[in-house]
Amino acid sequence: MAIMTTTSPAAFLPVLEQIAEEISRTPGRGRPADYIPALAACDPRSFGMALAEPDGTVYGVGEWRQPFSAQSVTKVFTLALDLAREGDELWEHVGREPSGNPFNSLVQLEYENGIPRNPFINAGALVVTDRLQTRTGDAAGELLAFLRAESGNPGLDFDREVAASETAHGARNAALAHFMTSYGNIDNDVPVLLDQYFRQCSIAASCADLALASGFLARHGIRADGSRLLSRSQAKQVNAVMLTCGTYDAAGDFAYRVGLPGKSGVGGGIIAVVPGRCTLCVWSPGLDERGNSVAGVAALDRFTTLTGLSVF
Amino acid sequence: MAIMTTTSPAAFLPVLEQIAEEISRTPGRGRPADYIPALAACDPRSFGMALAEPDGTVYGVGEWRQPFSAQSVTKVFTLALDLAREGDELWEHVGREPSGNPFNSLVQLEYENGIPRNPFINAGALVVTDRLQTRTGDAAGELLAFLRAESGNPGLDFDREVAASETAHGARNAALAHFMTSYGNIDNDVPVLLDQYFRQCSIAASCADLALASGFLARHGIRADGSRLLSRSQAKQVNAVMLTCGTYDAAGDFAYRVGLPGKSGVGGGIIAVVPGRCTLCVWSPGLDERGNSVAGVAALDRFTTLTGLSVF
Amino acid sequence: MAIMTTTSPAAFLPVLEQIAEEISRTPGRGRPADYIPALAACDPRSFGMALAEPDGTVYGVGEWRQPFSAQSVTKVFTLALDLAREGDELWEHVGREPSGNPFNSLVQLEYENGIPRNPFINAGALVVTDRLQTRTGDAAGELLAFLRAESGNPGLDFDREVAASETAHGARNAALAHFMTSYGNIDNDVPVLLDQYFRQCSIAASCADLALASGFLARHGIRADGSRLLSRSQAKQVNAVMLTCGTYDAAGDFAYRVGLPGKSGVGGGIIAVVPGRCTLCVWSPGLDERGNSVAGVAALDRFTTLTGLSVF
Amino acid sequence: MAIMTTTSPAAFLPVLEQIAEEISRTPGRGRPADYIPALAACDPRSFGMALAEPDGTVYGVGEWRQPFSAQSVTKVFTLALDLAREGDELWEHVGREPSGNPFNSLVQLEYENGIPRNPFINAGALVVTDRLQTRTGDAAGELLAFLRAESGNPGLDFDREVAASETAHGARNAALAHFMTSYGNIDNDVPVLLDQYFRQCSIAASCADLALASGFLARHGIRADGSRLLSRSQAKQVNAVMLTCGTYDAAGDFAYRVGLPGKSGVGGGIIAVVPGRCTLCVWSPGLDERGNSVAGVAALDRFTTLTGLSVF
Repeated sequence: MAIMTTTSPAAFLPVLEQIAEEISRTPGRGRPADYIPALAACDPRSFGMALAEPDGTVYGVGEWRQPFSAQSVTKVFTLALDLAREGDELWEHVGREPSGNPFNSLVQLEYENGIPRNPFINAGALVVTDRLQTRTGDAAGELLAFLRAESGNPGLDFDREVAASETAHGARNAALAHFMTSYGNIDNDVPVLLDQYFRQCSIAASCADLALASGFLARHGIRADGSRLLSRSQAKQVNAVMLTCGTYDAAGDFAYRVGLPGKSGVGGGIIAVVPGRCTLCVWSPGLDERGNSVAGVAALDRFTTLTGLSVF
Repeated sequence: MAIMTTTSPAAFLPVLEQIAEEISRTPGRGRPADYIPALAACDPRSFGMALAEPDGTVYGVGEWRQPFSAQSVTKVFTLALDLAREGDELWEHVGREPSGNPFNSLVQLEYENGIPRNPFINAGALVVTDRLQTRTGDAAGELLAFLRAESGNPGLDFDREVAASETAHGARNAALAHFMTSYGNIDNDVPVLLDQYFRQCSIAASCADLALASGFLARHGIRADGSRLLSRSQAKQVNAVMLTCGTYDAAGDFAYRVGLPGKSGVGGGIIAVVPGRCTLCVWSPGLDERGNSVAGVAALDRFTTLTGLSVF
Repeated sequence: MAIMTTTSPAAFLPVLEQIAEEISRTPGRGRPADYIPALAACDPRSFGMALAEPDGTVYGVGEWRQPFSAQSVTKVFTLALDLAREGDELWEHVGREPSGNPFNSLVQLEYENGIPRNPFINAGALVVTDRLQTRTGDAAGELLAFLRAESGNPGLDFDREVAASETAHGARNAALAHFMTSYGNIDNDVPVLLDQYFRQCSIAASCADLALASGFLARHGIRADGSRLLSRSQAKQVNAVMLTCGTYDAAGDFAYRVGLPGKSGVGGGIIAVVPGRCTLCVWSPGLDERGNSVAGVAALDRFTTLTGLSVF
Repeated sequence: MAIMTTTSPAAFLPVLEQIAEEISRTPGRGRPADYIPALAACDPRSFGMALAEPDGTVYGVGEWRQPFSAQSVTKVFTLALDLAREGDELWEHVGREPSGNPFNSLVQLEYENGIPRNPFINAGALVVTDRLQTRTGDAAGELLAFLRAESGNPGLDFDREVAASETAHGARNAALAHFMTSYGNIDNDVPVLLDQYFRQCSIAASCADLALASGFLARHGIRADGSRLLSRSQAKQVNAVMLTCGTYDAAGDFAYRVGLPGKSGVGGGIIAVVPGRCTLCVWSPGLDERGNSVAGVAALDRFTTLTGLSVF
């Protein structure tokens, strides 16, 4: 197997095309999330994949320009936005260790006095959102502005129907927020925090949008406009947290199969980073039992196998 | 910061020398493990670090030729030896997800019906040893022969005093083994298994030995003599498991700070892999509260910072 | 030791006087609950004890007519009021097993899918209150009316300052309520439920009031006015739940030392039942580390020792 | 319903006969324990029940003279024998709180540093056996001698086949014993302890034997020969532990339904105590999902309903 070293424009397009062709012949796709109607209505056969070069070139296959519900994929960006403002103090309020338990678990939170294990489990993302909210007064607005700027897509927006559905089914997250409040680890009122949190989750974006928006992680912290969001060390750290904690209780399996920092969402999206080289976003709404896109993981697995671009 | 790209012989020696000098000026070193006398007697000021190039060149600083108790560092090699024989069937008996709990925890084992979370917690290493024992009749002997061959050091050996002490303090591991037996996940008699396991842990080896012995992980599965131990994919997988699970309950922190696949032991040793580039072994017996060498983690942190060789 | 068999009026008064005298000479009293100001302000030297005969005769020692915050002692009455209406269907929504964990634990709730272990842990009391609220539209009002009728004290009332303080410090209970909502085990809106719950806890009543109000448990289900609240079997069941679950994580210890069905509250009150014979209420605000009144448990321990009236 | 107050000889025989008749018409019986052949071979339709008066009169119905495997019922006697020698010091090594978890759970043991919650879960019984072994050199022999003396049955004995089967399937108990050894809470060598423990469990005794042997608990600590085994207070305490912890994870349910101190075994036996009045033993090998005899619990439930002899 040869490792690709070319960096000519759209160099990986044939690889993406081969992957799309292989995926199209694969029967099983898992099932879309069904806890809210908007997600349940997705066609599990949908598939899109985009790759963004560090210079902003983006290309893709399948439904790579189709917006979908970004959900937990947004947790990466919220983390980066808060880390950029707050720095290491954040880590006194949320850990960076894998959770070793399903993503909603309250158990570990109780044993560790209200400090979530990492920023990508729901409890941790609530803490990060809470802190960004305190610093900005509008965490969701900050996130939206960032995603629009990095993707160059001013039409990117919240999906109010999804946000409303999330709120209506948000008892578990409300429990987490109140629980951490009881430990003094949440500053804002719970209803305000949940509103910010669910609006973030509701953002609709395409593979192209999210691959571009992730670009700062391949560029060691530099935004699309050349300004610095994160220090080189911080960008490395976000990638590390993605690799060890980015795919719920399957982070080890994802590292083992794909070998790239990645973050999934229950909308079926996954972003992945090849540090220094490129970022990817793949979308297919059918999920496995651990909440990760079946075709999405398979596509990324094929990508690192075909290109040799695993970090390992 | 420049990223080093040279591959000339001993290219990293100045970096190692700088690290050793910095470490020598650092006061705190943690405390040696004290559960057995042989470990408790170690001087926490001891420090050695070795780097092995893929071609077998090895060099180092400090006490890099001083044998120490390899302890859990050996779990990587036992895993590789069993995986080479058994392939993916192994993963039906041990997981590859981070444990999210202290390394001796029985809790997760109970909730997951006797299947340990990964091969690097004690329960998982017992399973791997048990399976290698079933396939070879002498797991510890296989491991010793492999380490001697890869390091080119025929004097490398078990430390019988350490093995005897481990056995005398082995109640927790005996509990784990009996517990997994009750789930049908251990084949050999518990006393036989524990004898094999503790002999493995007792192996005394130097930084030079272990850096060389890890070389197959930088060479994508190829042994020192050019023969293949693991497939390219399997070597990638072992690195992935090291990154996500290699440093007890601090795997996320290690990935965040160091950004390399690594495996630590309570003897104070840590091995780390720069895939395709080199392997490292650092030793300093003072441990932090999670069981990892304080100076060892600091040295590897400095190494990736100075060279830019983090996988992220 | 003789077992008292007399039933003449005020037969136990000398026993109560002896206990009060002994308690007055005991130095250590524990510390009042300090999570809300109204409880923290209590004098740990306060002590009162009342005994009610089945015929409604009541007498006591110390501050036995001084109102205090009934807190979790009210859980017994809410349970009885709901059980009277709903019968065994209640037990599909709350268990009757000891919790084996501190009284606020979310862990067990998660492992048992939102069904609390028993009606006396906070989660279980929230479920009982929720169900009584659904059936009556005013759970707290029902409880207050019942306590006034049984105690013959029309001045018995909620303490609005305490209720407001509880609400302000109610994050943990809010978490529990939302969490059970996520399992479909709560019917009412969480803020409505919490308001009902905290008003119940806030009720101020004296030892005399609560000893009298517990009388139906000594009379096998018969209220003060001769009407039946619970069947004989249900009254027995409430006593059984009190004995096994009534004193947080110290139920075994309470059974072992006192040997009577009892229910404690963090206000320092404890009620106890001698089935067929009498009911007791003791109050002293200093708590042990498990949340039970130090002098209260000691007084009841002495009572069963002096009278031989333990159920064992 | 009238409460029986007569104490004439065999006064309860008609009640037992009615119960046996009712049980004989009940279809479901649960399933015998199947982890060892000797238990699995039992006929789930078997049923026997015996009642012993404090004066040593014993009578029964059904197969009340048929020996069966006493199993965990013996834990009561071992507890009493150790408590008689050691007194309260025992409670520094084993708790007296309900476990709130299945009877083999290691979780709680880990969180509580090797101190079992109570003497009737397996871990706790191992600790009690270990301590009796240290004090006598032959815990199982002491137990056997006691049971022979109290029952007046010199033929009562260990069942060597059962003990051997238990040992062969004893991995879980071996794990518990090694685990507690690691916390310093076991004094004897694990194989010696397990041999003592399994021999105790293997004792074959009839309902008549066990009802008589329990008599000291109805007689407030006095043995059949009039000598004192336990103080009045200690006898009360053993009854309290039986009520709160005697039927695995169903202690609350047992208290709720039966309302008597009781102790069950997986052989299908249950002993129960009416303090000051009588002791009962019922046997039927079919178990419910929590390990208690289905017909046994039903028979005791009927007994307290028909006689009003619940402690509540």
